[in-house]
Amino acid sequence: MSGGEITLDKVVDAYERMAPPVRVTPILPVARSSAEVGRERLFLKAEHLQVTGSYKARAAFHILRSFDDEGRRRGIVMSSSGNFAQAFAYAGPVVGSPVAIVMPGYTADVKVQSTRDYGAQVVICPTFADRDPTVERVAEEQGMLALHSFEHPEVPIGHSGIGLEILEQVPDVETVLIPISSGGLAAGIAVAIKENRPDVEVLGVQPEGGNAAYLSWQAGEVRTIENWHSMADALSGRRPGELPFRYLQRYLDDILLVSEEAIAESVRTILFRTKTLAEPGGATAAAAFLDGQVDNSRVTVAIASGGNIQPSVLDMILAGTAGG
Amino acid sequence: MSGGEITLDKVVDAYERMAPPVRVTPILPVARSSAEVGRERLFLKAEHLQVTGSYKARAAFHILRSFDDEGRRRGIVMSSSGNFAQAFAYAGPVVGSPVAIVMPGYTADVKVQSTRDYGAQVVICPTFADRDPTVERVAEEQGMLALHSFEHPEVPIGHSGIGLEILEQVPDVETVLIPISSGGLAAGIAVAIKENRPDVEVLGVQPEGGNAAYLSWQAGEVRTIENWHSMADALSGRRPGELPFRYLQRYLDDILLVSEEAIAESVRTILFRTKTLAEPGGATAAAAFLDGQVDNSRVTVAIASGGNIQPSVLDMILAGTAGG
Repeated sequence: MSGGEITLDKVVDAYERMAPPVRVTPILPVARSSAEVGRERLFLKAEHLQVTGSYKARAAFHILRSFDDEGRRRGIVMSSSGNFAQAFAYAGPVVGSPVAIVMPGYTADVKVQSTRDYGAQVVICPTFADRDPTVERVAEEQGMLALHSFEHPEVPIGHSGIGLEILEQVPDVETVLIPISSGGLAAGIAVAIKENRPDVEVLGVQPEGGNAAYLSWQAGEVRTIENWHSMADALSGRRPGELPFRYLQRYLDDILLVSEEAIAESVRTILFRTKTLAEPGGATAAAAFLDGQVDNSRVTVAIASGGNIQPSVLDMILAGTAGG
Repeated sequence: MSGGEITLDKVVDAYERMAPPVRVTPILPVARSSAEVGRERLFLKAEHLQVTGSYKARAAFHILRSFDDEGRRRGIVMSSSGNFAQAFAYAGPVVGSPVAIVMPGYTADVKVQSTRDYGAQVVICPTFADRDPTVERVAEEQGMLALHSFEHPEVPIGHSGIGLEILEQVPDVETVLIPISSGGLAAGIAVAIKENRPDVEVLGVQPEGGNAAYLSWQAGEVRTIENWHSMADALSGRRPGELPFRYLQRYLDDILLVSEEAIAESVRTILFRTKTLAEPGGATAAAAFLDGQVDNSRVTVAIASGGNIQPSVLDMILAGTAGG
């Protein structure tokens, strides 16, 4: 694996090695009503249609396929109760590497079972705070690599191909909207786009109730938030990573905030207009366009980052009882 | 336009003239659980991601683009309160032809408004039985062509490219499942597939409560049903067309029936596994596979014919109160 910087050369090199089952995801036009079909300005980069239901499969395969034989035999351990867990759990058996996922004891059964079904070992730890020590313990006991996803440069590099694909698929793109949690996705995509096309506006988007990167951006240094509350559970970072934050500072044009109601409305609009299911975190970037926070005359691509939503959450969103 | 027969030459010729905004829709693997990801045997031909949300856009553009200048100036009138209405309403302004859609007075406001938003003239008639006379009256008054979609050979021909795309996209396909209402979709796809690959099994699927083509198939001649009841409102034909039925008899291997509960479960499985929204009629073909009515070791492509579902119907399906 390469060193600490995220460069266009590394982005392109990683993308050239991308292979199935990772998918080049489609671009989906989003009309706000039938009167707008054929004249859309908002397009989704449909990573919710990526294998395992989120863009995280890109970095998971990138990292596991970067291993030499010894690394592949040892495998990897990380903490995640979300989309990264599913992505690594799926990629491990495909590549032939053992994968262990550390999850806090309160993680929903369905996520634990789904991760096991994909083929990973799940290690339950008592609390959120025990996650990193448990990762270290498992790494030592089982001889695995401990992956700390917030600060590992190959995570943004693994995801950055999304930016290259957008430039290829939507050559007249003017604005790109990217959801931010740790900042790894936004950092990778921003490098890919701005190093090729500095004229394209690149904006980060966060929920109002999960605004750590926004506050850090305002402050000019990484800030941690104490309270986090949003239906966008995929964007639950209490702070951006130090590594990706440097790239957000360098490449982003701005970071915007969207309300819970705007996120819920975005899930509904995406569902009924494009016939695809984005989870709340996956609909957050598009929400900034649909809620009128950006110039809607510009050709805009919003990253739909994932679709792994719990049925009960979708029920609430459709019933209008979430996000109000 | 060509005469009365549906031939492979006509199928190929129509497909070669297909152009945007009609889309080559993707193939989506359907895993029944995360343990099955990467080893799927069921694939959707995703016509619910077609422009206007259903495959009907294919025939609408095919027919309107077949007109000469005089025909284009005169335009077309037809009756539909569903996906064909939206497809023609959208295609008309794109091609530069006037389009009038006849709808019974009880049609849901949202469908009337959506059709108008796309750009069509909507003519309301009092009852279901008044539809054909109203089409004839509008055709005479406005000098339009009256399209009777059940018996017009260019309808199956317009849809048949779906079959060619399946053979190209899934060369190892063994079984194709197609929903049936009038039979036009199944007739077109069956000709495209069986004339190229007679080894591929082609099966029609209907709801138990909307089984006119099934009964006709058993009887060896077109039968009309008195009672129709299903959540699959896109498959509301009380009888198959005489023209398409001849091709069903010639090319189909069988017609299967699925329960309302199997259709609802298919909508849910497609939504949460593939992150795409099929309407009940669009999930009916896949339901035959998911409900265990076909050999699930065979590589199977099910046509997901549309995604235009009313939010209230989706609510019921997700809550489990539909189809039980």
